[in-house]
Amino acid sequence: MKMIFHIFFIISLVSSISFASVQDFCVADPKGPQSPSGYSCKNPDQVTENDFAFSGLGKAGNTSNLIKAAVTPAFAPAFAGTNGLGVSLARLDLAGGGVIPLHTHPGASEALVVIQGTICAGFISSANKVYLKTLNRGDSMVFPQGLLHFQLNSGKGPALAFVAFGSSSPGLQILPFALFANDLPSELVEATTFLSDAEVKKLKGVLGGTN
Amino acid sequence: MKMIFHIFFIISLVSSISFASVQDFCVADPKGPQSPSGYSCKNPDQVTENDFAFSGLGKAGNTSNLIKAAVTPAFAPAFAGTNGLGVSLARLDLAGGGVIPLHTHPGASEALVVIQGTICAGFISSANKVYLKTLNRGDSMVFPQGLLHFQLNSGKGPALAFVAFGSSSPGLQILPFALFANDLPSELVEATTFLSDAEVKKLKGVLGGTN
Amino acid sequence: MKMIFHIFFIISLVSSISFASVQDFCVADPKGPQSPSGYSCKNPDQVTENDFAFSGLGKAGNTSNLIKAAVTPAFAPAFAGTNGLGVSLARLDLAGGGVIPLHTHPGASEALVVIQGTICAGFISSANKVYLKTLNRGDSMVFPQGLLHFQLNSGKGPALAFVAFGSSSPGLQILPFALFANDLPSELVEATTFLSDAEVKKLKGVLGGTN
Amino acid sequence: MKMIFHIFFIISLVSSISFASVQDFCVADPKGPQSPSGYSCKNPDQVTENDFAFSGLGKAGNTSNLIKAAVTPAFAPAFAGTNGLGVSLARLDLAGGGVIPLHTHPGASEALVVIQGTICAGFISSANKVYLKTLNRGDSMVFPQGLLHFQLNSGKGPALAFVAFGSSSPGLQILPFALFANDLPSELVEATTFLSDAEVKKLKGVLGGTN
Amino acid sequence: MKMIFHIFFIISLVSSISFASVQDFCVADPKGPQSPSGYSCKNPDQVTENDFAFSGLGKAGNTSNLIKAAVTPAFAPAFAGTNGLGVSLARLDLAGGGVIPLHTHPGASEALVVIQGTICAGFISSANKVYLKTLNRGDSMVFPQGLLHFQLNSGKGPALAFVAFGSSSPGLQILPFALFANDLPSELVEATTFLSDAEVKKLKGVLGGTN
Amino acid sequence: MKMIFHIFFIISLVSSISFASVQDFCVADPKGPQSPSGYSCKNPDQVTENDFAFSGLGKAGNTSNLIKAAVTPAFAPAFAGTNGLGVSLARLDLAGGGVIPLHTHPGASEALVVIQGTICAGFISSANKVYLKTLNRGDSMVFPQGLLHFQLNSGKGPALAFVAFGSSSPGLQILPFALFANDLPSELVEATTFLSDAEVKKLKGVLGGTN
Repeated sequence: MKMIFHIFFIISLVSSISFASVQDFCVADPKGPQSPSGYSCKNPDQVTENDFAFSGLGKAGNTSNLIKAAVTPAFAPAFAGTNGLGVSLARLDLAGGGVIPLHTHPGASEALVVIQGTICAGFISSANKVYLKTLNRGDSMVFPQGLLHFQLNSGKGPALAFVAFGSSSPGLQILPFALFANDLPSELVEATTFLSDAEVKKLKGVLGGTN
Repeated sequence: MKMIFHIFFIISLVSSISFASVQDFCVADPKGPQSPSGYSCKNPDQVTENDFAFSGLGKAGNTSNLIKAAVTPAFAPAFAGTNGLGVSLARLDLAGGGVIPLHTHPGASEALVVIQGTICAGFISSANKVYLKTLNRGDSMVFPQGLLHFQLNSGKGPALAFVAFGSSSPGLQILPFALFANDLPSELVEATTFLSDAEVKKLKGVLGGTN
Repeated sequence: MKMIFHIFFIISLVSSISFASVQDFCVADPKGPQSPSGYSCKNPDQVTENDFAFSGLGKAGNTSNLIKAAVTPAFAPAFAGTNGLGVSLARLDLAGGGVIPLHTHPGASEALVVIQGTICAGFISSANKVYLKTLNRGDSMVFPQGLLHFQLNSGKGPALAFVAFGSSSPGLQILPFALFANDLPSELVEATTFLSDAEVKKLKGVLGGTN
Repeated sequence: MKMIFHIFFIISLVSSISFASVQDFCVADPKGPQSPSGYSCKNPDQVTENDFAFSGLGKAGNTSNLIKAAVTPAFAPAFAGTNGLGVSLARLDLAGGGVIPLHTHPGASEALVVIQGTICAGFISSANKVYLKTLNRGDSMVFPQGLLHFQLNSGKGPALAFVAFGSSSPGLQILPFALFANDLPSELVEATTFLSDAEVKKLKGVLGGTN
Repeated sequence: MKMIFHIFFIISLVSSISFASVQDFCVADPKGPQSPSGYSCKNPDQVTENDFAFSGLGKAGNTSNLIKAAVTPAFAPAFAGTNGLGVSLARLDLAGGGVIPLHTHPGASEALVVIQGTICAGFISSANKVYLKTLNRGDSMVFPQGLLHFQLNSGKGPALAFVAFGSSSPGLQILPFALFANDLPSELVEATTFLSDAEVKKLKGVLGGTN
Repeated sequence: MKMIFHIFFIISLVSSISFASVQDFCVADPKGPQSPSGYSCKNPDQVTENDFAFSGLGKAGNTSNLIKAAVTPAFAPAFAGTNGLGVSLARLDLAGGGVIPLHTHPGASEALVVIQGTICAGFISSANKVYLKTLNRGDSMVFPQGLLHFQLNSGKGPALAFVAFGSSSPGLQILPFALFANDLPSELVEATTFLSDAEVKKLKGVLGGTN
């Protein structure tokens, strides 16, 4: 009897304060159309706790490469729950001598925290001033949106850091790849960077650029 | 003759200054995909004045319930014209002794104006400070985004208020429902609120929670 | 003894989770410098519940004027607590035959709810299409940011409405005042509106314009 | 041998730093659904350099019309690449005596630069104050979002200006068209502008309005 | 000779492309006035690399308290360089049995990555649905802005996580403190949460609340 | 008599609809504190039409330099009226062979329109894809926020373009200056760009860099 009474009240309560389609979140549906604000939202009825979790940062990236480093992103749509929430993550692995080359994130500022090892990090302002820090375990640093910055393992062993971005799609433009790993004609690279023809062609060779 | 002349000018004028697809508004099309910025836009050709009007706030909500109160929202997509415009409305009816329990709006700040009766309203800041006011007819109050707040009929007769939000999808998280009207295990509720097992189980019983 | 124990725990708890200068809100300090984001913030230590409340909407505006209407705003800095919160309010009083002339809010969309009487309201889109509604008690309507709109008492007795804006500084540009209540030379008004010299000069006379 | 080595490194490098679906831009796909943030994004694989370029501003608009002026917009979706990027352009051609009538852009502020001739431009603030400048070749002026403004050829020959907006969809509401080129009943125009019936009907006749 | 030539070119180059007062960043000056957009900017000439770095996250918080947990924030103005950049960090230390009680961040979404141990984390949506995950080392999870969430050490040893926010001032409202650690009258707490008088008074006793 | 009547009405009208401190604009006061949203606002009473106009774009920049080009910005605070309005301008002068080196604007997208000559312009996406166009008089192009781009005179005579930005403080980071015109140690430049020591030192010599 009491239970029936309760159920009656609960139903009347729920009907008095009901909100269809509240947009608490917008889990990325990579198959839907994208908009300037991000990916389409997955049907809320099909959203589960797994959409808000991501296990890809748990494994070290493969650092057996030219830069002895790896960046493992946790952005939308891979980390689907971040879509539209204005925050995302990535993992940086730097083997001994590893370096994340000069790069920018066109869409967000970055905050980094060192988990292991020693990292020399820096950014360059519009006024061409350099802000350079050596960061040890637990140290953090922030890199303003759109400015060139880098991270470099300046310790002896491997280094690990996690980075966060104020967007679910921060973007990433890596300078040497932007310059030398595409078909931008060498003469245009040279004219717009002041680099020599020999240097440009050598690096295009190393990084796979043409023209 | 003069009319023809005019029509000629008008046509040439319109053709000189014509703007297809100007986005003055984006009336919600609940059948289209959603994005982090809100609902898809209805085809502008099918938009009418009725999309910008809403009659649902004209009728008192049913206050025959546990809280002797009702919230009637006018958000997107129900009030389709608000989509993307950064403003929406709701109606609060509080019978004698009625209360809108502690709640937050994750997506917008709220402004309230009392139409009838006396309402005791308050919010709690991140610094745990309480801001409490007794509001009479014509008094207004603002509740900052995301902070816990409540409204309570502190007068003798029924009370009526209209509230506005700085978003077409402000969201609404009602504290006792969030705690006790779902399947969040009692032991987790207890550990994260410091409430006793007996209290949690009692309120889960009242509000329909399980686990 | 137990109390001492509790106090110890509370202090250690507070010290473990303390956040100086959290910006839950930014109550307007009209004496400080303004920025594009609004007024300076009042010192949080001096903020009281009164900063979040406003009693000015409780009294009918004086409608003994040319338009038989009055707008009573509750914006920042008058309603200081709204500063930066993205929402504000105003009260519209329309005596019989009263009209809020064509106007725009450059900084926010508006949502209106009728409390008393009958209001004919409308707005005009960029495509020059008119969206017109007759609104009775409890009806609401939304007016997109920056578009010309008006409200007019189309009933028999006085009308009252409350309006909300998605900004604490929505702005208000009233068309006939913008055209005829300043020193914009008549020839410029005429050239840019197609109105006749006689009409412009007549209305400048009525509304106090010069030149 | 060395090339194989390089290719190996490049591939391992690319696999170590790869970002699918980065949202650097969102070229407008006018056939997809729109959202409050703009047009749907074209499939990035089909985006070409032509989506970021627009040749329509190179040709003078036709000024053989009532206002002896023409506005040629370069907004989304016509200039598809601007979608979501927060900037767009337009071209103003003013023959001798030409005028861009009083108008507003509900969605963005405008910056103008004079390329040829002399332009008298002005805007009116919410406080009904007029800001008026005569601009010569190379002079620029800014018009705040949502405020009434105009441009008028005050020189002897033709004038040309380019204008920029802080949005890809700034909107454009031209005052005399909004008032007189639609079916807004004359009595409502008169009541909300203080204009005379004769004036309203005359201009409705000129501009094609009805009712 | 060549050097003089170079210096001449450099000077002329710098003078041809010089930008005073570019706002790449706005390091918090806690002594200046605050605005809705954050803290005042420190004089750029006095900004150093130390403003963009923060060492406070390197040390474990003191978990000898009621909740066996500690939150160490790296927000503005403590981490001055984050001001206005839309990102910040915090460190969570959870001893065995430690718990971060139910809380919200009114101003930002949160992304968490587990560095050590096992954390059970969850959030509750506006629809009262619970999203619950057990996270191991390297797992990450996102918590939408303004929604109640918690983190709890569900492993055997201590747990450590870093969290990121999409704002330099995310705010933090801890539920049991908001309810029981201030002077909100017990009868209001009870009426707005449905908790019993005994429970409220007991917890006010534990957490230092009055009234 | 009639005039007195009118004045009475006007005064009562103005008093019925008066809005102190409406924030239509926020003209930069470079002496006040800055915030993340821009410069402090000049006292509205001291704002004149001159604050919204700028004559600096009327004069060709000096192209007698290394790059045979000049950028003349019209940003805040130089063009004070743009502050907070989300739009600004600049002028590009390119003598024969002139080039604006690879650069980014961290704070805004750019739209360019060619006034004279022929310009080859391009940008590079995060996916390292190049978007390259040859633009003639009247052609326009858009460059997404934060991405590397350049402009180069590819015609015979001088070239002139105006560019617009979706921010009053777009920022400007010129790649070769960022790399070679400061004290970033050569070994760090080399490690993070893959350039050779000889090349880096040569360009540091040309552009005035040290270390």
